Amino acid sequence: MKGEIIDTFIQAVRFDAQGLVTAIAQDAATGEILMVAYMNEDTLRRTLQTGIMTYWSRSRQKVWVKGESSGHTQHVESVHIDCDGDALVFKVHQKGAACHTGHRTCFYRRLTPSGLVEEGTLLFDPAKVYGKS
Amino acid sequence: MKGEIIDTFIQAVRFDAQGLVTAIAQDAATGEILMVAYMNEDTLRRTLQTGIMTYWSRSRQKVWVKGESSGHTQHVESVHIDCDGDALVFKVHQKGAACHTGHRTCFYRRLTPSGLVEEGTLLFDPAKVYGKS
Repeated sequence: MKGEIIDTFIQAVRFDAQGLVTAIAQDAATGEILMVAYMNEDTLRRTLQTGIMTYWSRSRQKVWVKGESSGHTQHVESVHIDCDGDALVFKVHQKGAACHTGHRTCFYRRLTPSGLVEEGTLLFDPAKVYGKS
Repeated sequence: MKGEIIDTFIQAVRFDAQGLVTAIAQDAATGEILMVAYMNEDTLRRTLQTGIMTYWSRSRQKVWVKGESSGHTQHVESVHIDCDGDALVFKVHQKGAACHTGHRTCFYRRLTPSGLVEEGTLLFDPAKVYGKS
């Protein structure tokens, strides 16, 4: 994507007081919501330039190329912005699982009348992928 | 849903420094992401008690029963929480349109190689629904 198109798009984004925008990764094939995280201007630009989802990790305060440790990268198919510009939806092709727990989606817990239940099967063993540190 | 189940669920939610949690409304039938907004503990509890999406409006600093002006309410089918508890997905049945612009979804703008394009048709005229104030 051309730099000037990226620049114009970034101008439409309303970053919050911390310089972040909410980024939702949605499975391009199934519509399943995989995860919610944040991007700053720099990581949004990297995402648009590379087509690989690149977040800003609030807990680690660093650039976070999703899947850099696990290989479970997210490849952007399309980018959508909401009416007031403070949230983005990225339709992505997810390699492996989005969640560090090994679930396909981070939203693997559903509220039922008897409490939270876990859904889906584990796609990997976190201890093997990330080590036991 | 029983009060004690709601209480236990709310304990699993990690509200931010402003006491808010990210709430994503997703069309239960199509998987389309309709909007992203916020709930505090009180409006989350109301949502779970009534089955009607009830947000906390950050701009107006008040309880916001979605659709209270327009009639475009959102009825909860299921509730999902992510791995770290700071984001919720609600699968909903949307009456009319989610967006105050008259679009079905707030994410009606897609980034293309030539810039942002609007998608979908307007389901209502905002001036008629909300008045021209």
